[in-house]
Amino acid sequence: MSESTNATLAPAWIAVDWGSSNLRAWALDADDRVIAEASAPRGMLGLAPEAYEGVLLEAVGDWLPAAPPTEVLVCGMAGARQGWVEAAYLPLDAGANDTLGRLGGRLTPVTTRDARLRVRIVPGLCQHAMPDGGEAFDVMRGEETQLSGLVARHPDFSGAVCLPGTHAKWARLEAGRITGFTTFMSGELYQLLSQDSVLKHSLHADDLDDAAQRAAYLDGVDTAMAAPGRLSAELFGIRARDLLDASLPRDARRGERLAARLSGLVLGLELAGATATLAPGSPVVLIGAEALCRRYRIALAHRGFTVDVHANADMILAGLGRIHRATPPATP
Amino acid sequence: MSESTNATLAPAWIAVDWGSSNLRAWALDADDRVIAEASAPRGMLGLAPEAYEGVLLEAVGDWLPAAPPTEVLVCGMAGARQGWVEAAYLPLDAGANDTLGRLGGRLTPVTTRDARLRVRIVPGLCQHAMPDGGEAFDVMRGEETQLSGLVARHPDFSGAVCLPGTHAKWARLEAGRITGFTTFMSGELYQLLSQDSVLKHSLHADDLDDAAQRAAYLDGVDTAMAAPGRLSAELFGIRARDLLDASLPRDARRGERLAARLSGLVLGLELAGATATLAPGSPVVLIGAEALCRRYRIALAHRGFTVDVHANADMILAGLGRIHRATPPATP
Repeated sequence: MSESTNATLAPAWIAVDWGSSNLRAWALDADDRVIAEASAPRGMLGLAPEAYEGVLLEAVGDWLPAAPPTEVLVCGMAGARQGWVEAAYLPLDAGANDTLGRLGGRLTPVTTRDARLRVRIVPGLCQHAMPDGGEAFDVMRGEETQLSGLVARHPDFSGAVCLPGTHAKWARLEAGRITGFTTFMSGELYQLLSQDSVLKHSLHADDLDDAAQRAAYLDGVDTAMAAPGRLSAELFGIRARDLLDASLPRDARRGERLAARLSGLVLGLELAGATATLAPGSPVVLIGAEALCRRYRIALAHRGFTVDVHANADMILAGLGRIHRATPPATP
Repeated sequence: MSESTNATLAPAWIAVDWGSSNLRAWALDADDRVIAEASAPRGMLGLAPEAYEGVLLEAVGDWLPAAPPTEVLVCGMAGARQGWVEAAYLPLDAGANDTLGRLGGRLTPVTTRDARLRVRIVPGLCQHAMPDGGEAFDVMRGEETQLSGLVARHPDFSGAVCLPGTHAKWARLEAGRITGFTTFMSGELYQLLSQDSVLKHSLHADDLDDAAQRAAYLDGVDTAMAAPGRLSAELFGIRARDLLDASLPRDARRGERLAARLSGLVLGLELAGATATLAPGSPVVLIGAEALCRRYRIALAHRGFTVDVHANADMILAGLGRIHRATPPATP
């Protein structure tokens, strides 16, 4: 690393998405254009608080001029209680207030040893149960930034937004304001069932490009949506089909179809709950990783919804950009 | 072990329930009265086929006279493909045939090195999917013997029978004949969620004798039954409540109530499916371990069903007794 390199780069600010397992960082110029990128497989689950600064410097140290300090805006699990520094949840105000628009005023500063850094962490959102039962206790951390990015791009957005993942979030937005959200543990449920349950013996990695696997997947979606109460019976049915169903091929395709069916059942259970209040054919925005969004898109389109997919990184950068512009300058 | 001891005991036959994790054996006289019992923590999951005979002899060897060979009737997972010797499933005939009454004619003999043993294994039942969708692929192994025991005690029994466990079975009987059954993976689902998911940090062993825990349990049952499609959202809600719910106590009672709620949610999902076709207030027979049956009984009674509980061991002995009496003598 040489001073000339730093002088060449000199980002206006740095955006960081720091999750449970990974760190992604972008150097941005004064017009929020990406001038450099970095990533590392180091997330909250494997880091003690005192390790964060070193990991961040390994990723972005080359971008930093000696002075003045560079703004680093962090979203995600780095702000969890078990993360770098806890960034207290901002309570969702389902009424008139624009909760997403207030994120920039509620950043948590982090004290660093390296004077070239000025780090602040975006809060997650929490939702308290409503006496009328209309909303339930819930939390998100990281997704609020992506939702803020969606609103930065589409200021008056209204509708349902789904952010697939280990814990999928379904948010409701009205005229650019978040009015409520629900987390579904489907991703974790699928992992547990496919890796740790009796079903693991019956499964083989699926591929929805295959017509038979896609049909098995969609049959799983339809089955779970039609009778969500039978879910734990349909789960054991995967095992029973493996033992008894003579129509299944006797090679890897057997496990592929059963894995596709399991994936469909678990997602169908989520859709039974998440789409219950949506009008038929209404639009759903997906924000997330490409492969997982594709899986959701196939199921939602099959069920008649209109689907629009936005890439994860785009929404994070748009969201951190909006928060960065709304942020009062840090006082040294 | 002395010959005189053997001569004193000399059982007419031996009943064995050999499951995934445990073996239980009973020595019976000519009137099917229990004259000795044994058990061992050795089941299918930890035994290679060649190890079964030695484990059986450790448990019952003291009971065996030198001659003639003693009948040993085995039910359970020892007859699985991964067990001692595979005892092929008997296909359930939902029509006029008495499937449970035919178990004794379909035993699988096991060749043993020790000439004092004459071992035979009871088949499990399999159910093939019906074109009309009325039944689905399913299997049971061990529970068929308990159902046979129920019919031995109540020859014209009609109604719903639930056998709780890792994979709970719900069977439908008409005039002593089984007409169909459904397996729910709820027990395994609860284990995965409570031991391996993000929820494990929020839980503490529950006790339904405590009024607040019982209320949390029943609220979980009602919540899942009212909206089974929201199950994976309610699961994450356990975590969110732990983070946010100010009404929960800040000590171990917090985790106890959340564990009770989780247990209620998972059982409620099962009951949503299993009781959907039962008339309000109709009777449900439970066969199983005491603590688990109690948990089911509390939920079923709360939902208005009439519950009758039968002990596991009683039904196994009655079932193996019925099968033993119906068994053609083994030919050497």
